[in-house]
Amino acid sequence: MTDTATNMRLKLPLTCFILEIIIIILFGVLVQYDKETDAKKWHLEKKSENKSDYENDFYYRYPSFQDVHVMIFIGFGFLMTFLQRYGFGSVAFNFLISAFALQWATLMQGFLHGLHDGKIDIGVESMINADFCTGSVLISFGAVLGKTSPVQLLFMALFEVTLFAVNEFILLSVLDAKDAGGSMTIHTFGAYFGLMVARVLYRPNLDKSKQRNCSVYHSDMFAMIGTLYLWMFWPSFNSAITAHGDDQHRTAMNTYYSLAACTLSTFAMSSLTAHDGKLDMVHIQNAALAGGVAAGTAGEMMLTPVGSMIVGFLAGIISVLGFKYLTPILEEKLKIQDTCGVHNLHGMPGVLGAIVGAVTASLASREVYGDGLEDVFPEIAKGHLSASTQGFRQAISLGVTLGIALLGGIVVGFILKLPVCGAPSDAICFEDNIYWEVPEDSPSHGDQLASVRTEESEKLNS
Amino acid sequence: MTDTATNMRLKLPLTCFILEIIIIILFGVLVQYDKETDAKKWHLEKKSENKSDYENDFYYRYPSFQDVHVMIFIGFGFLMTFLQRYGFGSVAFNFLISAFALQWATLMQGFLHGLHDGKIDIGVESMINADFCTGSVLISFGAVLGKTSPVQLLFMALFEVTLFAVNEFILLSVLDAKDAGGSMTIHTFGAYFGLMVARVLYRPNLDKSKQRNCSVYHSDMFAMIGTLYLWMFWPSFNSAITAHGDDQHRTAMNTYYSLAACTLSTFAMSSLTAHDGKLDMVHIQNAALAGGVAAGTAGEMMLTPVGSMIVGFLAGIISVLGFKYLTPILEEKLKIQDTCGVHNLHGMPGVLGAIVGAVTASLASREVYGDGLEDVFPEIAKGHLSASTQGFRQAISLGVTLGIALLGGIVVGFILKLPVCGAPSDAICFEDNIYWEVPEDSPSHGDQLASVRTEESEKLNS
Amino acid sequence: MTDTATNMRLKLPLTCFILEIIIIILFGVLVQYDKETDAKKWHLEKKSENKSDYENDFYYRYPSFQDVHVMIFIGFGFLMTFLQRYGFGSVAFNFLISAFALQWATLMQGFLHGLHDGKIDIGVESMINADFCTGSVLISFGAVLGKTSPVQLLFMALFEVTLFAVNEFILLSVLDAKDAGGSMTIHTFGAYFGLMVARVLYRPNLDKSKQRNCSVYHSDMFAMIGTLYLWMFWPSFNSAITAHGDDQHRTAMNTYYSLAACTLSTFAMSSLTAHDGKLDMVHIQNAALAGGVAAGTAGEMMLTPVGSMIVGFLAGIISVLGFKYLTPILEEKLKIQDTCGVHNLHGMPGVLGAIVGAVTASLASREVYGDGLEDVFPEIAKGHLSASTQGFRQAISLGVTLGIALLGGIVVGFILKLPVCGAPSDAICFEDNIYWEVPEDSPSHGDQLASVRTEESEKLNS
Repeated sequence: MTDTATNMRLKLPLTCFILEIIIIILFGVLVQYDKETDAKKWHLEKKSENKSDYENDFYYRYPSFQDVHVMIFIGFGFLMTFLQRYGFGSVAFNFLISAFALQWATLMQGFLHGLHDGKIDIGVESMINADFCTGSVLISFGAVLGKTSPVQLLFMALFEVTLFAVNEFILLSVLDAKDAGGSMTIHTFGAYFGLMVARVLYRPNLDKSKQRNCSVYHSDMFAMIGTLYLWMFWPSFNSAITAHGDDQHRTAMNTYYSLAACTLSTFAMSSLTAHDGKLDMVHIQNAALAGGVAAGTAGEMMLTPVGSMIVGFLAGIISVLGFKYLTPILEEKLKIQDTCGVHNLHGMPGVLGAIVGAVTASLASREVYGDGLEDVFPEIAKGHLSASTQGFRQAISLGVTLGIALLGGIVVGFILKLPVCGAPSDAICFEDNIYWEVPEDSPSHGDQLASVRTEESEKLNS
Repeated sequence: MTDTATNMRLKLPLTCFILEIIIIILFGVLVQYDKETDAKKWHLEKKSENKSDYENDFYYRYPSFQDVHVMIFIGFGFLMTFLQRYGFGSVAFNFLISAFALQWATLMQGFLHGLHDGKIDIGVESMINADFCTGSVLISFGAVLGKTSPVQLLFMALFEVTLFAVNEFILLSVLDAKDAGGSMTIHTFGAYFGLMVARVLYRPNLDKSKQRNCSVYHSDMFAMIGTLYLWMFWPSFNSAITAHGDDQHRTAMNTYYSLAACTLSTFAMSSLTAHDGKLDMVHIQNAALAGGVAAGTAGEMMLTPVGSMIVGFLAGIISVLGFKYLTPILEEKLKIQDTCGVHNLHGMPGVLGAIVGAVTASLASREVYGDGLEDVFPEIAKGHLSASTQGFRQAISLGVTLGIALLGGIVVGFILKLPVCGAPSDAICFEDNIYWEVPEDSPSHGDQLASVRTEESEKLNS
Repeated sequence: MTDTATNMRLKLPLTCFILEIIIIILFGVLVQYDKETDAKKWHLEKKSENKSDYENDFYYRYPSFQDVHVMIFIGFGFLMTFLQRYGFGSVAFNFLISAFALQWATLMQGFLHGLHDGKIDIGVESMINADFCTGSVLISFGAVLGKTSPVQLLFMALFEVTLFAVNEFILLSVLDAKDAGGSMTIHTFGAYFGLMVARVLYRPNLDKSKQRNCSVYHSDMFAMIGTLYLWMFWPSFNSAITAHGDDQHRTAMNTYYSLAACTLSTFAMSSLTAHDGKLDMVHIQNAALAGGVAAGTAGEMMLTPVGSMIVGFLAGIISVLGFKYLTPILEEKLKIQDTCGVHNLHGMPGVLGAIVGAVTASLASREVYGDGLEDVFPEIAKGHLSASTQGFRQAISLGVTLGIALLGGIVVGFILKLPVCGAPSDAICFEDNIYWEVPEDSPSHGDQLASVRTEESEKLNS
């Protein structure tokens, strides 16, 4: 019975093919090289503006793009491999939905960032933005990890990318808010969207799968690969689309120090909150990253190195406390089963980052930024907004993000409940064997597999 | 008996020392810094041409070089660790033959790309080319993985690098073909060369080792590290030696979209071709990369984003079909035991890439490329060739590559059959224990080891 | 009893919080953005010196910084995961002490490299230097791996960073020595400092833990991730802070060829020194990196490609011989228990690198370097020093480094002996279970854990 429901033989190929063919048609009709990737246009621009090849945006942004790309595929992918029997699903569904989401995001962001002569222009900056949007989907994936079919995940990505682009448009183009590293657009949005989806998909009997909802020794090691790549490349993430020059440089450095301080407070809190002082890998794998999330909005501003450290320090503390005390409450009281604890890594630190961004923006002045004010706060520099108004708009942006994420997550959650999506039953969550050919290997795995099968056949017999 | 044959104590050190000493002597006689790495020459050039340090090719290409370098050592190395008992051999023989091949390639490519005053000039571009040539050897390694001694592998690298350089010279310098990402020179050449070596080294009793010719859960996770690094950095691979500016930018982006589309068709086909719809890790690990291979020739051309997607989409389909239906035929009918399925990942997608390149080249026009035509098709821009002739030459290049690869592989295969090379017997293939001190660890491994030993001692007793 | 001593519940949080708060206060008082990260200053500089954004040092150095960053967190972190039951401690204590050390190094190096108006200016170059200093601490960590508490490690980092900065100041600012890749300042210093700490912390009964002081199959695979990232990115490490242009370019290339040659001699020696010719993963994981260490000083000089290869070739030989014959002597005769063999990877190759640097420097001439002499040897170019004096000063620098490292290591070793630091007893070294919540997973691990517990309870009962 379960077999029929979760058999992906028609559902998954159909979904993939239809989505990809739609994308190919839309790309054919709508997408073109921008003036830095098109052979003719770039050579015209070089000639007319007397530019050199090293002024092509590729050289400013491609190294950052590659770091972001590693964060999306290795960082998020391996961070989620901590589950003992869901390594294939973690890293490979991450791969699938990212490959889809980055294409769809190119289209959705292209529409909303403005067409040129009815066309979407693409280049390295749009590639970074597409990866960013994908990151948001992966955060939501973390909340529902192990409890969803690949078809559900593709549908979630489809709708979430679309809503992401709408929210991003409102924040950046309507409200003129700044959010280069995406504390709001990426982290807050992805986390609360995913939490709402998890809420709607609440599984009352999930404890039937609880023996697999934990790590083994080697799966924790794989997860650390994800953690460290996210940690190391977060400076590139936050600085990837900031303005050239001091902006990229400063953003990377602020993030570097925020993360370093966050790591120390994470280790401290992890030990402090354990009755025997033993460190918990869950905290190290996740909370140590909160400093990057929290520096996502203000990182490009003149936050100062010490300001960055304080933000990171607080983010680590909040995040560990969340894992320790809030996650159980979310699950028991609010019926939100958050597999990876995205509320602690992306949700609360994202809100913190938004608030820090609003405060820092409201303190902006030409005295501090000099002519650099044009790059960071063009609306203030042009006199269209006062610093305090900019700060207020940043705060409004947080509210808008929360609203769209919460509402959107609920609606999308209900869509994903459709039986056709092939979700696993409560007893076989966190198990690769449902959607993957799994090699039968070490006794331990064999035993687990056997026990799963026994459970299943018992169910069928009863 | 087997022990004596596979004992590397004299063979491997002698081979390594002799090869390295020859290389050192040849480097001493022939190799010098080029004008961008030599202190005196660069400062002279700066002064005479009024250049700045940021015009040094290092800043255009070194980030791409490092990405390529990661693909060679981590990408190829870990992709091959899927075998349960050949992780050491996969990642470390990959390391050994790469370290040798990149040195030898510097010499061979240097000879053939033209000496300057009797010297080979080296810099970041020659380093990338050396890594590229190494990639070709690693593709062939995939075909014979688990069935060869390190001495065989070093000899294979020695001859293959040499033939690679000859083929590359014919294609790029004689035929004026374009192949920046190496659909032909790297992938088609490496795959068909390796398949011929595997054919000559055919092992009729390989099923004695078949219990080890498969993965375990964690070895599949390690292999995904290789897959993802290849996937993420393929845009850098294809763009690493294209012209500065729009060319590098466009090539990277074309490859990015080709791979994304390929990933969706790979997942779709993997599920569709399984009777229970379960995904197969072999497909995800390999076929999802075919989009990078297939964009290797046309990636630098004005293929358009949608063109790139269509190419990647087809490459994924072809590749999964190859794994599913062609590999068994190759093994049974043609006696080609292709351990990693390089025919499906590099062979067929490489040929596809060559064809796409020929077609795209034959459509080139100044109207589309503008002054950029000089960079992509200098012979067409100069009026030496028409677009259709360029396309025809691209097609000829594919034929030349196939010819040299097939013939070369057969000859080298026979050289590697020499008993002195220390190949393992059919019953102990895919086993690290032959060439490595292997720690005795988990029961599962212990059991396997014990069973190998029992088999061996039975063989000796019989 | 042991539980009480090694319980970190108060010690670790207190240490982390106090150190981080001190750092935050000092950053608040002393640290500011430099002229390339400060919005106002950079825009003033752009205007007054007619500069462009691509001249911001970020674009010259950030890709190298990220490579170095990966070496510190993934490279060193995973290199040390070879121990079967110390993967968490290896990768995560590496993470903790690095996050601390890079902050503290910013302050210590900032003081000694010179304040500007009483402030420490920071940017990408100071970030690289902070990571470099952290690398030195991680080398010392390798010597005491598995035998120290996180509190001991933080204290070691605190003092070692301070002494590192003093030694670096003497070498670079007082003696005008050159050491861009840190053969002396990083490798020699870190290794001999760590060896002295290990000497003072000598554990006579460490063989009680010897069953865990070795690898298992998968832990060796994880360690290869570390090895390969160190190997691949070492060219970026050595070139990260050399002068722009030919210097960065040449240093990266010299290191590339030194490492390639080193890899061949490592494989040769590993096989040659085993009675059955089987390769040893310990050698491959470590000795193959010695070529990077040995090119640390002379890499930026006109060492020539062949010179680099010879240096790497010798470094590999020395390093394997050290692992094979010297490490047991160090342990038995000198009572230095060097867990990772840092003497073989960093100690001896570091000294070799220093000597090669001294010799190469003493051969410098304007004839060879042209105007590039200014960049590599400014004191020679200005006529302040002769080449032979520069070479002599390089040699003196090696002596100074050894002196400070040996003395400093002894003193710090005694500080770390204080019982309050919570070191594990001899019977429970190399065991994550002391400081970590460890999941109970495969039988093999379970057994080991059980046996540890039995030993422990036997000890308590006796």
